Formats: sequence, C-alpha cells, structure tokens
Amino acid sequence: MKISKLVGERTKEVPSGVIAKSHEYLLRAGYIKQVCNGVFSLLPPALRVQKKLEKIIREEMDKIGGQEVLFPVLMPKELWEESGRYSSIGSEMFRLKDRADHDMVLGMTHEEASVHMVRNIIKSYDQLPFMIYQIQTKLRDEPRARAGLIRVREFIMKDAYSFHTNKEDLDNYYEIVKQAYFNIYKRMGMKNVVSVKSDSGMMGGKIADEFMLITDIGEDSLVVCDNCDYSANMEVAEAILDTYESKEEPTELINTGENKTIEDVCNLLKIEPNQTCKAVCYYLSKSKKYVIAFIRGDLEVNEIKLRNLLKEEVVAISIDHPKIVAGYIGPKDFNEEDIITLYDISLKGAKNLVVGANAEPFHIAHFSFERDYIPETFVDISKVKEGQKCKKCGCGHVKIVRGIEIGNIFQLGNKYTSSMHMTVHDSNGEEINPIMGCYGIGIGRCLASIVEESSDEKGIIWPIAVAPWQIYLCPLRLDDENVAKSTEEINKLLEESGYEVLFDDRNVSAGSKFADSELMGIPIRIVVSPRSLQNNEVEITLRKTGEKIMCKKGELIKKLEELVKILG
Amino acid sequence: MKISKLVGERTKEVPSGVIAKSHEYLLRAGYIKQVCNGVFSLLPPALRVQKKLEKIIREEMDKIGGQEVLFPVLMPKELWEESGRYSSIGSEMFRLKDRADHDMVLGMTHEEASVHMVRNIIKSYDQLPFMIYQIQTKLRDEPRARAGLIRVREFIMKDAYSFHTNKEDLDNYYEIVKQAYFNIYKRMGMKNVVSVKSDSGMMGGKIADEFMLITDIGEDSLVVCDNCDYSANMEVAEAILDTYESKEEPTELINTGENKTIEDVCNLLKIEPNQTCKAVCYYLSKSKKYVIAFIRGDLEVNEIKLRNLLKEEVVAISIDHPKIVAGYIGPKDFNEEDIITLYDISLKGAKNLVVGANAEPFHIAHFSFERDYIPETFVDISKVKEGQKCKKCGCGHVKIVRGIEIGNIFQLGNKYTSSMHMTVHDSNGEEINPIMGCYGIGIGRCLASIVEESSDEKGIIWPIAVAPWQIYLCPLRLDDENVAKSTEEINKLLEESGYEVLFDDRNVSAGSKFADSELMGIPIRIVVSPRSLQNNEVEITLRKTGEKIMCKKGELIKKLEELVKILG
Repeated sequence: MKISKLVGERTKEVPSGVIAKSHEYLLRAGYIKQVCNGVFSLLPPALRVQKKLEKIIREEMDKIGGQEVLFPVLMPKELWEESGRYSSIGSEMFRLKDRADHDMVLGMTHEEASVHMVRNIIKSYDQLPFMIYQIQTKLRDEPRARAGLIRVREFIMKDAYSFHTNKEDLDNYYEIVKQAYFNIYKRMGMKNVVSVKSDSGMMGGKIADEFMLITDIGEDSLVVCDNCDYSANMEVAEAILDTYESKEEPTELINTGENKTIEDVCNLLKIEPNQTCKAVCYYLSKSKKYVIAFIRGDLEVNEIKLRNLLKEEVVAISIDHPKIVAGYIGPKDFNEEDIITLYDISLKGAKNLVVGANAEPFHIAHFSFERDYIPETFVDISKVKEGQKCKKCGCGHVKIVRGIEIGNIFQLGNKYTSSMHMTVHDSNGEEINPIMGCYGIGIGRCLASIVEESSDEKGIIWPIAVAPWQIYLCPLRLDDENVAKSTEEINKLLEESGYEVLFDDRNVSAGSKFADSELMGIPIRIVVSPRSLQNNEVEITLRKTGEKIMCKKGELIKKLEELVKILG
Repeated sequence: MKISKLVGERTKEVPSGVIAKSHEYLLRAGYIKQVCNGVFSLLPPALRVQKKLEKIIREEMDKIGGQEVLFPVLMPKELWEESGRYSSIGSEMFRLKDRADHDMVLGMTHEEASVHMVRNIIKSYDQLPFMIYQIQTKLRDEPRARAGLIRVREFIMKDAYSFHTNKEDLDNYYEIVKQAYFNIYKRMGMKNVVSVKSDSGMMGGKIADEFMLITDIGEDSLVVCDNCDYSANMEVAEAILDTYESKEEPTELINTGENKTIEDVCNLLKIEPNQTCKAVCYYLSKSKKYVIAFIRGDLEVNEIKLRNLLKEEVVAISIDHPKIVAGYIGPKDFNEEDIITLYDISLKGAKNLVVGANAEPFHIAHFSFERDYIPETFVDISKVKEGQKCKKCGCGHVKIVRGIEIGNIFQLGNKYTSSMHMTVHDSNGEEINPIMGCYGIGIGRCLASIVEESSDEKGIIWPIAVAPWQIYLCPLRLDDENVAKSTEEINKLLEESGYEVLFDDRNVSAGSKFADSELMGIPIRIVVSPRSLQNNEVEITLRKTGEKIMCKKGELIKKLEELVKILG
C-alpha cells in the first residue's frame, strides 16, 4: 500500500477535549473519524487492525467448538417481550417503529435471538452442549459515550452463547471460555489483563467475570491483592475487615448540636470515623419503601451489593419521614412497614461506637452492638477499602486500580430458556430447560485498549500480530534512481514474502516520514537511503524499543524473520 | 464438523407460503431462520457460505485498488440533511430518536458517510482517484419483503464509493468495476448474469447499471435481444417500434356509445389496438398538474420514463377535470395551465387511427398525426414490447425475461460532493467537487440467487467455491469397526489436506444421510461402507451430476484434486 493513496490524514494537532491516549492517537494517525456522539467511521488502517482482532477471536472461538452464526440487528418487540427485557431494559436500548408501526429494537445483546434460533431445532440432551457466536454490529444508547472507541454507541462485538444440560457442564465450559479469552488477549498483545468476579447486571445470571485491562484511563475500579492473584470488580469485591479493639463502657447521651455528619461529629468528639456507626438512606421506588443502611463510619455502602441483596434498584436520598430523625438516626427497631433496616457486617461485635440517638440534637457514645442493640442479621453491603487484608490469601493487602472492561462472561442459568420455553429431553426423557452461558468481547474497545497499553509520547506501538502493516518502508530521496529502484525491489520482495508493507512514497522530509511511522505505530521501519545503499544496506528500526539495525539487503528477509519472532 | 453437533435441522416438509426455491431449501436445509418479516438469522452453514462470498468480493475489490473501511449503521439526521435525502427518502429509511431525542437514521446506503469520511482529508487532485468500500449490515424498510433472502429488510451488503477529478476517469473506473463484478459473480459460480442499463432512482446520478441473474423467480423485467448482447432494465429499455402501413382516409366522427376503453372500442369497430391512440392520465401532486399521455393503443406507458421526463413523481389516476371528457380524450391543444399533454413517439407519422373526439359519446376514425394534429414534440414514454426489433443490432428481436438484481453500479456525478461541500484542488489550483461512483452488492441476495440458479428437486447444488463444506463424509454402518476406523482416518486426511468436511456421524439410515447431503447441497459426497472397504475403496458421488466414482482409499486425495478442478 502506497501511503500517497492511503485514505487518511496524519496530524500533529491534539484534538480538543480528548483525554484518552487511544482517542488522540487513533484520530491523529488517521484511524477513526467521529460521525456523531459515540459513533465512528473506521478508516482503512483501523479496519485492517479490526480484521486481525476478529481473526484471532474467530480462531479461538472455533478451537473451543464455537459455530459462527449471524443474528439480526433489527428485532421485533415480541422477541424481547418473551424474556421480559422489553420492559426491564431502559433507555440504553434503541427502539423504533417500522413502516407498519410495529415496535422494533436494535440489538445490544442477543440472548433472545440465540434462544429463538435454536429452541425448535435442538430437542435432545445429546445435541448439547454447543456454543454459537457471532461477530456483529451492536447498538447501545450509552448515556456517556467517551474516550473515542472506549465507550461508544455503535460497536462490533463478538458475542457467544452456550447451552448445557447441567450446571457442572456449564461450569466446565465456562472455564474453557475463560482460558480462550486469556489466549485472545495474549495474542492481541495485551499484557495487564485480569479477570474479576463481577455483578451480572441486566444479564440475569449469578456467576459473572469481567476481563479487565489495568490502565489509568479505565473507568472501572478493581480490587487486586498485592500478594496473591485475587482480583474483583469493586462492585462485588470482598476483603477482611479491620477491627478495632475497644473496652466496653456505659452508654452516654451527648448533645451534638447541629453536627450531623460523621465528619462533624468526629471533629466535635475528637474520634476517628471507625469509632462511629452511620446511617445511609435509600428509597426503593418500585416497592415504595425506605432503606436505612447502618455501616461503620469509615466505610462506604456498595450500592450494587445493596441492589443485589434487595433485588431492586436503590436510589440514595435525603430522608424525609415522620418516624425518622434525619441526621441523628441510630440503631433500633423502627417497626414501620415502609422502613427496612440493614446492618453491615462491619458492625458485628463493634463496641464503643458513637451512633445517632434518634432524637434531635443527640448522639449516643459508647454504644455496643450485641449489648445495646441486637439486629436480626448482619449483611455485607460495604465497599472494600484500600489496605484491607485480602480474603483469599489472608496476608496480602488489597489495592484499588483502574481497568477497562475488555470482555465479560456470564452464567445465565435458565432465565432465557425458561421464559422463552426452550426445552430438551434429558437422558430420562424428561423435558428440561437448558442452562446457558454468554460471552462477549467488544472489538473496537479492544483495539483502543491495545493502544492505551501500547503507546508512547510519539504515538501508537502496535503489537506485531495486530498491526495494520508490519513494515513501514521508508525511502529517503526517492529522486535518487538507486533508492527508487532498490525500494521497489525491496517492496516486491517483502510482499512476496507475505509481509504487509506501507510504502511511504511521498516527497516529504525524513522527519515527517519518521513521525508518521511512529504516530501510526508500525512495528518495523525499513529506511532505504543513498548512504545506506553505499554499503548495500538498509536501516531497520523497531518502533517498540527504538533499536536500529543495519542489515545487508540480501539478508533482509532472514533478519525480519528473526525480528518478527522476537516482537511476536 | 460433525453433523450431530451442527446447529440446525433438516426437514422434509415444505414450509407454507414459500414460493422461491432458495427460500424453501435454505429453510429446509437449516441455513436460515426467520425472526420477523424480512429479517433472518443465519445458521452456521449459511454463515460459512456468506464468509466465502465476502472473501471473493474483498479480493476483487482489493484487486482494483479498493480500501476497506467501515461506516456506522447509526447516523445522525444532520448528515442526511446535508445531501437533502433526509426529506427526499421516504418510509424505506428506518428513523429513530436517541435518548437525547436526537433524530437518527439507520444506514440503507452510505454516500453521505463516505463523503463525510474523506471530505476534510482528501485535499488535492493527486490524491484521486481512490475507492473505499465496506461490507456491513444495511437496514431498509422494504414494503414487500419476500422470497426469503431475496428481498429483506436487513442484509449484509458490500458498498463501494469512488472519487474522481473528471468524468473520463470515472468512466474508465466504472468499466473496471463492471468487469470486477462479472469476475465476482463468475467466482461465486453464477452463470446467467447480465448487466443492464437502469434507472438510477434515488441515487441521483445518470448512468447506472444493474447486474441481473436471469431466473424465473426474479422480480425485475429485463429486455434482452435474441441476437446481440443488448440487455436493459424494462424501466429504461428501448427497441425499434414496429410500424403499420396504412393509407390516409378522411376523418369520420363515430358514436361509440358507452365504449370507452381501447378493448371495447376495438371490439366494436373490429380493429386492432395498434390502430388506435389512447390517452393515459396521471397527476403530479407536487406541481398539482394533470398529465395526459397519448400513446398507441397496443403499447403501455413506462412510468419510470415518464417520471424521469417530468422530473417528478407521477400517479396514475381516473381523471376528473371540467375541460376533459374522460373516456373520449383525443389529441388537441387543451390550453389549460394545469394540463400537460405528451405524445409518445409511437404516434409519430401514425395514420388512420381511432382517437377520442373529446366529446361524449364520440371517437374519430381515420385520424392521422401531422395531418389532423401536429404535437409540438414526440417523446419516448413507452414500454418495450416482446418481439420488437433490437435497437442495438437492428436485426434481432427483443424478449422479456425475469431477473434478480444481484448488484448495481451508479455514476453519481457531484450530487453529494457538491451538496456536502467536498472540494479538492485540481492541477490548476482551482477548487472542484470530485465526482463519484458507487457500487453495491447484496451478499445475502447473492447467496439466495446462487441457490435459485443452482438447485434441483432434491435441494441445493453449491458451486464448490462457495459451498459451506466441500465434502460430505458419509460412513454407512458406523458400528462396523473397520468403517469407523477408516472414516476417522479419511476425515483426518481430508482436513489435513485442507478440505472442509461435514462428517455425518449419525446413526440413521443411508437414505436419510443421502437426502440430507443432497438437500444441503454439498458438492462431493464420500461414502465409506463395509462393502466398499472390502475392495479398499470409497464411493464418491458428485452432487451436480449424480456421477458415482469408486476410488481406492490411497488415491482419494489425488482424485479429489481432479474433481475439484472440474467442479471449479
């Protein structure tokens, strides 16, 4: 490919409002162009990378028995009503009407379509397990599209669906897919990838893992152990709670005046937040109830844990209820139908706390759970805090890092097969609902994530397996007949040897050519110049290390073979 | 691939309401499943075929310098307002609102997106010509989805856009693409493909060709010559008008009573329709005018020609106008601002016609144009009739055949670059709007068209280049140890030799296996049976011809190489 004919432009200017490196470089190096908020066109170099990512994914999916299919983007309302998700999914799903005024949706995921495809053709247990997958455009009306290809409203995704007769079979296959995912990311050249237990959100299952590339631009918080391989999404992470030894003393009513927040009360009484119990209030709009979540004052409520516990969306509120003294709420039985109280496990056995006295303007000091109040049960609704001990190894300490979600896998159970009436005969002839797993990878996000991890101040550094071209062929002084002839020969030789070559045939300065090759991230640059040709040599530069190697023309292919091995 | 694990079912029952062979076989052989009107899921065998079609298209597009890109499915209203098509395209475009209440459209074609991609990055004439293409999901709200994958609302399409500095360059490239299209269809195994001049419809250009597979299920009427290579879409076809010799006689007013139609008048007067002049009435709702189209009584008005002539949509009507005597309309100057009269070229020099007398209940006989009335001009608004002489060779006769449109190419001129303000500097430094060509192929429709052309009463007959699997490996009596062992060996050998094998590992009758292999259309079947193995042989059957060949196991790969060459 001659760069003079390549559709795309490379620019030095950093586009305004761009915060992610991948966003900046993909724009500046002519890979992507924004069409509207969260929607991009891919230019030829980006499509070349994407095709390589797709190929890696296809190969790994085929290796674990996947069968590629294609579901539609456009689906009728009725299909989504069967699973109940037409109403349970909100405005992130694009909806429209066709010319006959039928309600349609655009596919953001394809559980319904996958069950629809197989439910009448798979009839017996011996046809299971199987896995079908597709690579296809997805549309999702993200409220906050951001960072170029990291979070968009239209994207190409690989999504896969597996069907099993029993949990054990799904568990086995789930681990196989997990390994395939790690293989995929490795082949794509990503290094800092971890899988974390996660919340399954709207997918409806219980077991779920997210694959995270650890990087500062990530929008997810991950909890990782500094000693063992424990990692989890903040939403579901657990750690060992630090406890505070304290002797019991008699309770004491204290007038705390206008001091209502933990911070103010601590300042007033000269105590630490971990010596307090705070009350955080929520509202359940569906069941129209209030929730008072009691938790140790130094901890935060994890709203995802709360939602999963209550099986309902929760909204944090400033409470206004005749039986509740806002700012001074303390542990007690409220005995009201519309009030639910929850006690976090951080309060179990806690002694000598300052708690609200349920009367204005008072707090109680030296309050001890189990002595002064015994809740029915304690529940885990707290966020992990950096520095807590790891629950898995018991000796490491957890830290919180940022990650980009580059894939996820879910165990769905029979949510879809049951609601959509898919049954197969088991080995006893009984009808059962198969259980499902589903497995997604956003390909555009992978492309951008690779750039986040593999780039420097000059631009992108593509891993050689996914580079749009492996070689940037860069003649200096193309007006020199010898350079022109040699470059053409080398180009031909390289292409015949199966290399993908971006040939910089422009009449611009060496500096411009080098800058473009670095910005675009091509792994190997070969410079052909009058000077190097005097020794019958070319100069090879590796994008990743900057290493320069002089190489005899006749030994070029041999040398490249070596280099590709090292870079791979 | 073991057929016991293949997702999909083969059935004998012909689904109700299915008229096209491709629709029937693709359903019955487990290739497709309908999700809703005009929307299908593709099962694994269909996707395998589709990937092969895509590969052929990619290779041929790359060969002629195409650069693959990807435009979005989801586009903002504003992009389509720039070209004016947001309002000019009707209900075939899907429209929706996003969560911020912005108007969006779903891509049915991507001229706007292609200009958007390149307009700020291509700045100079020496960056032209270039061609970008994509293979992607398109959505089009067809009023009449039909015949399985032949006419659908969601489909994968290759669409390409080329940009040129001048008409000559576009003309040259247009012919190159045309040849590439013929190469594509040939490689896909389609035989009866012609290109026909066509109307460019909403695309906005002047020169347009459609590629048609000639087949009875086709929904388009094509005019082809039985002597030369002339072929054209009915919409724009021309032919030499047959003329009728007749001596002039004096006009005569005839009371034709209630006989108003050509048929009734001909019956009454015992004359042929070609001895009459009829008036066909239309309404132009935009300019609010009536059109009276006079044409020889045996011919039909071609409404596409009429629309192109008047540059406005036309609607056939039963006319109700104070100055018009419906049923008795004849040639004259109406001298009304809201009446346009048109005279077809079939009337030029016509003599001795029966025409309406513009008075009830009268017709005029022996009416001669140029003697009794001289229109300002004659225009070509008639449909070609089977048997007319070919205008191209002058000696052949045209016939009308049915065809499926399997691709189209258009010269767009500067409609989009001008309305969307894309300019480049020409060699004199002047700013010009590049001119464009666009080139489409519907891939799903190609898949179905191949089946239409290549199938028999037993099922599909895939051309080997696009078959989902080349070989159907069909052991009989897998319980026989020798058969099982030999089949496994052969399977391994075939896969190592690069063949794609569908292995029928089921415990069903030979008849069922043969029927499935024929229905699915796999080109080569290899039967391994206890009997054939006695001679150390296998039986090869060619799907296309039914030919059976006994082949020594050791010579199988050599034999297959020969067969693939013949079948290819």
